[in-house]
Amino acid sequence: MEIRKETDSMGAIDVPADRYYGAQTARSLIHFDIGWETMPREIIRGMGILKKAAAQVNADVGVLAADKRDLIVKAANEVIEGKLDDHFPLRVWQTGSGTQSNMNSNEVIANRAIEMAGGKLGSKDPVHPNDDVNKGQSSNDTFPTAMHIAAVEQIHERLLPAVKNLRDALKAKADEFNDIIKIGRTHLMDATPLTLGQEFSGYVQQMDNAVKRIEGCLPRLYEIALGGTAVGTGLNTHKDFPVKVAKAIADITGLPFVTAPNKFESLAAHDAVVEASGVMKTIACSLMKIANDIRLLGSGPRCGLGELILPANEPGSSIMPGKVNPTQSEAMTMVAAQVIGNDTAVNVGGASGHFELNVFKPMMIYNLLQSIRLIADSCRSFTEHCVVGIRPNHDRIQHFLNDSLMLVTALNPHIGYDNAAKVAKKAYEENTSLKEAAVALNLLTAEEFDEKVQPGNMIGPK
Amino acid sequence: MEIRKETDSMGAIDVPADRYYGAQTARSLIHFDIGWETMPREIIRGMGILKKAAAQVNADVGVLAADKRDLIVKAANEVIEGKLDDHFPLRVWQTGSGTQSNMNSNEVIANRAIEMAGGKLGSKDPVHPNDDVNKGQSSNDTFPTAMHIAAVEQIHERLLPAVKNLRDALKAKADEFNDIIKIGRTHLMDATPLTLGQEFSGYVQQMDNAVKRIEGCLPRLYEIALGGTAVGTGLNTHKDFPVKVAKAIADITGLPFVTAPNKFESLAAHDAVVEASGVMKTIACSLMKIANDIRLLGSGPRCGLGELILPANEPGSSIMPGKVNPTQSEAMTMVAAQVIGNDTAVNVGGASGHFELNVFKPMMIYNLLQSIRLIADSCRSFTEHCVVGIRPNHDRIQHFLNDSLMLVTALNPHIGYDNAAKVAKKAYEENTSLKEAAVALNLLTAEEFDEKVQPGNMIGPK
Amino acid sequence: MEIRKETDSMGAIDVPADRYYGAQTARSLIHFDIGWETMPREIIRGMGILKKAAAQVNADVGVLAADKRDLIVKAANEVIEGKLDDHFPLRVWQTGSGTQSNMNSNEVIANRAIEMAGGKLGSKDPVHPNDDVNKGQSSNDTFPTAMHIAAVEQIHERLLPAVKNLRDALKAKADEFNDIIKIGRTHLMDATPLTLGQEFSGYVQQMDNAVKRIEGCLPRLYEIALGGTAVGTGLNTHKDFPVKVAKAIADITGLPFVTAPNKFESLAAHDAVVEASGVMKTIACSLMKIANDIRLLGSGPRCGLGELILPANEPGSSIMPGKVNPTQSEAMTMVAAQVIGNDTAVNVGGASGHFELNVFKPMMIYNLLQSIRLIADSCRSFTEHCVVGIRPNHDRIQHFLNDSLMLVTALNPHIGYDNAAKVAKKAYEENTSLKEAAVALNLLTAEEFDEKVQPGNMIGPK
Amino acid sequence: MEIRKETDSMGAIDVPADRYYGAQTARSLIHFDIGWETMPREIIRGMGILKKAAAQVNADVGVLAADKRDLIVKAANEVIEGKLDDHFPLRVWQTGSGTQSNMNSNEVIANRAIEMAGGKLGSKDPVHPNDDVNKGQSSNDTFPTAMHIAAVEQIHERLLPAVKNLRDALKAKADEFNDIIKIGRTHLMDATPLTLGQEFSGYVQQMDNAVKRIEGCLPRLYEIALGGTAVGTGLNTHKDFPVKVAKAIADITGLPFVTAPNKFESLAAHDAVVEASGVMKTIACSLMKIANDIRLLGSGPRCGLGELILPANEPGSSIMPGKVNPTQSEAMTMVAAQVIGNDTAVNVGGASGHFELNVFKPMMIYNLLQSIRLIADSCRSFTEHCVVGIRPNHDRIQHFLNDSLMLVTALNPHIGYDNAAKVAKKAYEENTSLKEAAVALNLLTAEEFDEKVQPGNMIGPK
Repeated sequence: MEIRKETDSMGAIDVPADRYYGAQTARSLIHFDIGWETMPREIIRGMGILKKAAAQVNADVGVLAADKRDLIVKAANEVIEGKLDDHFPLRVWQTGSGTQSNMNSNEVIANRAIEMAGGKLGSKDPVHPNDDVNKGQSSNDTFPTAMHIAAVEQIHERLLPAVKNLRDALKAKADEFNDIIKIGRTHLMDATPLTLGQEFSGYVQQMDNAVKRIEGCLPRLYEIALGGTAVGTGLNTHKDFPVKVAKAIADITGLPFVTAPNKFESLAAHDAVVEASGVMKTIACSLMKIANDIRLLGSGPRCGLGELILPANEPGSSIMPGKVNPTQSEAMTMVAAQVIGNDTAVNVGGASGHFELNVFKPMMIYNLLQSIRLIADSCRSFTEHCVVGIRPNHDRIQHFLNDSLMLVTALNPHIGYDNAAKVAKKAYEENTSLKEAAVALNLLTAEEFDEKVQPGNMIGPK
Repeated sequence: MEIRKETDSMGAIDVPADRYYGAQTARSLIHFDIGWETMPREIIRGMGILKKAAAQVNADVGVLAADKRDLIVKAANEVIEGKLDDHFPLRVWQTGSGTQSNMNSNEVIANRAIEMAGGKLGSKDPVHPNDDVNKGQSSNDTFPTAMHIAAVEQIHERLLPAVKNLRDALKAKADEFNDIIKIGRTHLMDATPLTLGQEFSGYVQQMDNAVKRIEGCLPRLYEIALGGTAVGTGLNTHKDFPVKVAKAIADITGLPFVTAPNKFESLAAHDAVVEASGVMKTIACSLMKIANDIRLLGSGPRCGLGELILPANEPGSSIMPGKVNPTQSEAMTMVAAQVIGNDTAVNVGGASGHFELNVFKPMMIYNLLQSIRLIADSCRSFTEHCVVGIRPNHDRIQHFLNDSLMLVTALNPHIGYDNAAKVAKKAYEENTSLKEAAVALNLLTAEEFDEKVQPGNMIGPK
Repeated sequence: MEIRKETDSMGAIDVPADRYYGAQTARSLIHFDIGWETMPREIIRGMGILKKAAAQVNADVGVLAADKRDLIVKAANEVIEGKLDDHFPLRVWQTGSGTQSNMNSNEVIANRAIEMAGGKLGSKDPVHPNDDVNKGQSSNDTFPTAMHIAAVEQIHERLLPAVKNLRDALKAKADEFNDIIKIGRTHLMDATPLTLGQEFSGYVQQMDNAVKRIEGCLPRLYEIALGGTAVGTGLNTHKDFPVKVAKAIADITGLPFVTAPNKFESLAAHDAVVEASGVMKTIACSLMKIANDIRLLGSGPRCGLGELILPANEPGSSIMPGKVNPTQSEAMTMVAAQVIGNDTAVNVGGASGHFELNVFKPMMIYNLLQSIRLIADSCRSFTEHCVVGIRPNHDRIQHFLNDSLMLVTALNPHIGYDNAAKVAKKAYEENTSLKEAAVALNLLTAEEFDEKVQPGNMIGPK
Repeated sequence: MEIRKETDSMGAIDVPADRYYGAQTARSLIHFDIGWETMPREIIRGMGILKKAAAQVNADVGVLAADKRDLIVKAANEVIEGKLDDHFPLRVWQTGSGTQSNMNSNEVIANRAIEMAGGKLGSKDPVHPNDDVNKGQSSNDTFPTAMHIAAVEQIHERLLPAVKNLRDALKAKADEFNDIIKIGRTHLMDATPLTLGQEFSGYVQQMDNAVKRIEGCLPRLYEIALGGTAVGTGLNTHKDFPVKVAKAIADITGLPFVTAPNKFESLAAHDAVVEASGVMKTIACSLMKIANDIRLLGSGPRCGLGELILPANEPGSSIMPGKVNPTQSEAMTMVAAQVIGNDTAVNVGGASGHFELNVFKPMMIYNLLQSIRLIADSCRSFTEHCVVGIRPNHDRIQHFLNDSLMLVTALNPHIGYDNAAKVAKKAYEENTSLKEAAVALNLLTAEEFDEKVQPGNMIGPK
């Protein structure tokens, strides 16, 4: 491997000749050879966006030369577009402020800018990674800014569309199943009837609420730390920088980022990430419920509930021929478990900041981004490969409905709870129909029974 | 112990003669002798509120006689006021729908109403626990309604005032400490300066956001399940019941409860509780940060940071005389850990509903109410016994400020990052002042150093 | 309320005249009015045990007079027996070292001893709470000792018997159900057959492993901190104290307590509690599986799987007459969720010690003891009120077995996986039996089919 | 891209011509496009190992031809060695039994074997993925076997050496620091002295216990599911297969794997994984404590505790020149938080098995392997880049020791706790030395004070 020398305040170090990164990235690779999880692509993009915005604003307020600005912006654009991803090799498990990933960004942008200017890689001339690319910034305000940019972009571009898509698919099914009366189940036990459409409408409501919950946490994610520099005071930055740079980031992303009202909070705490992760785990709980219901309702084909027929996407077993399994539910529920676990990790990190800085940043955003991504992807997959293909098993649904003892509940207003209980008990013990039991107990005539106990009249209030 | 017989659909059973509860409560005491945690008082109150509201509305819509209504309302009022708490002995670890606590409420209200009417306890005459007190209701819609009433009341009456109180106390300190310049610390290491007021302003922001987060989850807690009855369809209830009963509950509590838009969701999922618990854990993370900072800043008195002097409330050690400890921070951080743990329990329960019913209700609300209570109480205690009494240790603060090497950061714009790093390194290694090092390196004159490096100029942007 | 004055190093304070506790307990009641959770009775008992043992050993090694020892032992015995529980009012949410509960113990024992000696409460004469009752001790070593005593006693007396009892009840059912062949279910879908006894044998194995896991964590819980005093060095205690006092505690409890090999670890970390809580959550996961299976297998009675008939302990619904629910499973699974949540709380506390002391002690042991208690009680309840009464529903089991398509798996070795899959698919799509499909596909004769496909031959290897 | 056709029981599908995988893998890529997390390499290796062992044993017991065995073994060896990793593209978020990864293994081994035999890829001739490679197996017993193989190999090869290495490095420091007396700190506040070696000895004990905990969970991980086939009965496998195949796996790996005593438990529950994850989180808590202590003791350089000097591995700040941060502690504590979160995910999965199968397998093992890997790597990194380079700051240590008020504790046995408290209080309030205060209070002479209060006599019992 060809190498070149790069230097930082600790001295010189070898870096691969074909990489734009510099000394600090190289050092991090040595000192943080931990796990295989590299800094998420979304964070690198976020870094590109904020470095571009910072260069623009620094030039605007007169502290960066226009030619440097242009070089930085051009290099940053390549970072944003993902063209330089191979130059960002650092691990999540590094310094807890993300300093090394900030420096990785500074180094790559500086060297790429130098290259475009015809300079020598590593020369820091004409563009210096700290003095120019990082001008008026600190890892302590850039990294949390990248965290918020990454989370917000992923929420808008990936999560919200996927959740809404699932919601719409469930709504279509709720409408389609509107007239299918089926037995209800509470405590897993037979209960009074409802329509299959009503059952699905509960899922729709959960997804409607999911959207509200996501939107509810966004305002605090829109607030960005940039302008706080090292400890939140904004030392070494221009007084107009915070507001202008937030505006520039909003312009680049098309998303309503604003400067955070208090930079000390933005650096020292990541409550907004903790909160957003709390929203993700809430949605995970919703999805776990929905995916579980669907696989239980689809269980069988002959020895389960079998009220739903789920799409058969793949052979289900390497040993049992012809087996088809609710695999989309399985992926979804595994994702839900992961998101709940990620939330715990985020909580531990979020609770552990000290003084002017929380140093669990890379871990926290790694988990939040994974949660967002997994929920989004599994919603999309679940919608496409399961929900849209769900069909009711009318025979099965009808069979259960007719058989249930809980239709007796319709008699409460007529013969009272205690008598109705006697009817249900007798029918259960003697394995007869409710009607037979009711008549045998002289509580109603067969005609009265037929009049009072009609599933179609039991699916709403009077 | 004197006993009397009570009966339910399973037959007769002994109950203590001096208790208003009936057969189902008595059965539950036998079958659920698990742990010592009884159903929270707040839930019992919520049950009283909704039973009163239901009786009023049932009479209104013509399905309950006025005299029965009056009896039920009077008995329910006693439940609301806490006069009958001794008649609610059931454990949290019972049926997962809270059915037994609903029946406990029905039985106590019925028997107390019977007593007031001069009837015989256990006779179900003139007021029947199921047919009258529970009219048009099911455990499946009453218990979640009680959950929301309890959570919302506790949030409004206990939590929000306590959080705002802490916020105000921190704000008062932030203002008081506005001019005290101190060293900043990032990664626990010396950093650039800020004011003690700025440091505290971060905590204020966290608490401001806490209030927003709490308010953000309330809309979904205001939505109540009542009217859904057994499975969400509203079977056996009057069509006007849901809206009217929510209005009645809003009137009784003075809080903006409304009927839930989808009752299937309200019974089968408790996402609103999962969400609210997610808010609590977010606040717990904030409080952990604040309490940790304060105890670290108050550490010493001679071998710690010692920048703050915390109130000495009690002897700190049974063996070390004169020791005073940051005990309010300790209670607060233990509470924070508990709330984070409770959230995990809530998540597991929230993810585990099936079909028309989630049967982790008592566990979920037990945890949420404990979290609300503990945060509220510890915020109040921490405010009163710690925050208001915090004093700065001016000598110590000044000493650290003068000593710090990170004041060198002010030189970045003048001599560049790399040269500034050399100054800091030299001063550190030779244990000198920054000025001596800077001058020795011929980077600035002593006069220039004094002009550029002024902590008072480092606490904000230019 | 009558009061008397008590003093500590901070001065005088009023205490109720009829309470044995003193100034520090009284202060704690003022400063820690947080929540309603009081220090668990088991910890108070543990404190009594260790105070008694310490007095005995201190007298033994010649640093405590025999008459003082006798008084302390007599008073401590009353604490152990629970006679003085009303004198221990402190909350869990206090100082994180449990100092105030240690002082509560010192104060109560001293005052009760003084009373027995005919002295004046609060006089500290002839028995001083610090100098005599706490002699050679610190909260920092007594409280963790009480934590281990409490946990170990509860594990031995409550948990292990309950887990073994459940294990034995499951084993009895596994034996009883040994010959009942039923359909297996994987992914909730029909699979190849097994016996109901085999199914239950898996639960037995889980409980056998639970016992091993509990026993595996005990060695580190047997190690006690006493003798470490304030920071682990054993300052102000006799050099023979640690070994002798562990022996004395072992004698009192009949359990193999030993002095911890490293007292610095014992005070500063509670990894043994974190580990034990990890065992509890593992058992919680096992119990969740078992309880879920049993309620799903018992679901119905007519619209579920219905292979098991569970005991009907109580009316299941306040609105649906005759409904019976798997309430023991519900209590058990709520307990499991709680234990998993408690474990998270314990982890946060366990990770948060600093230097010579972990100050999350009361919270940690509160959660561990709750987990132990809840698992034990719910195992007992589940055994008694559910497992022993489980009956198979032979008709249902037979019906499913005959109907299943997965019996086709028996044909793999004969016609290959791909052909077998065709048979299953054809039977499913045409709603026929496997035999009909196999014959129609000319893959086997009816006779060959009958010979190869026998559920009774499918429940084990060849 | 060149393609070929592969078929499974669902029909034909395109696969890339240069991949060995077949139809089911191709289907999974379409249906499970979720996240970026692919099945861990360690699981693929485990699959290779067990497929090789199964082929050997199947040939042994006479159900697989020797030539097929040889081909399978050769192909499996390539899987084991990692040569075919590019042919295992499947995601973690797939079917919850890992069926598709089992089939991926079957397909790759079959096609590679076919290729080596000169056959046509996709022809299933002469080696069939189901009938030959998967002979006598099911995903349901192979995947859990791969889980245990992967976990055990990683524990033995990666985790235990790294933990022991850290333990030894800490022990070396404990020995090196044996005579350095320093102030103790409890509640973060000044306490009685101990040696720096004693402080580190606590960490050594934690790591000694970590090893015991790891070893304690291994017995249940050594138990493998293979032989259970589809539901645990062992249908379609040879009766000698389970014991022999476990022996074969033990031979291949050199690790003491045995056949599980109950295969129903092995398929339906993954309590052993839940337990092992519980061990990992316990170690994470230990590591969090150690890493936090070390960074707090190293805080400064001038405004912190500064008792330790940590290695300066990299520039710590992009804005503050000369700053050096405790970055190894930061990576370690982020890892600890992740492991605690992973444990929650594992718990949710472990609690969620149903009937004969737990379908959270890939998620569970993904998390456990990540936890093992991260702990191992960060222990190694922390040892190498931090622990071995730690130096004491003698001046600072001495300064704090002399200054502390808690040396007063040595006077307890001489003047009593209450008098000693007066001395400490007076010294604190008047900012004098303890000696001055003690003499001023006439409690001892200066000579007596000097005799009684010697830090060197306070680091152990008498």
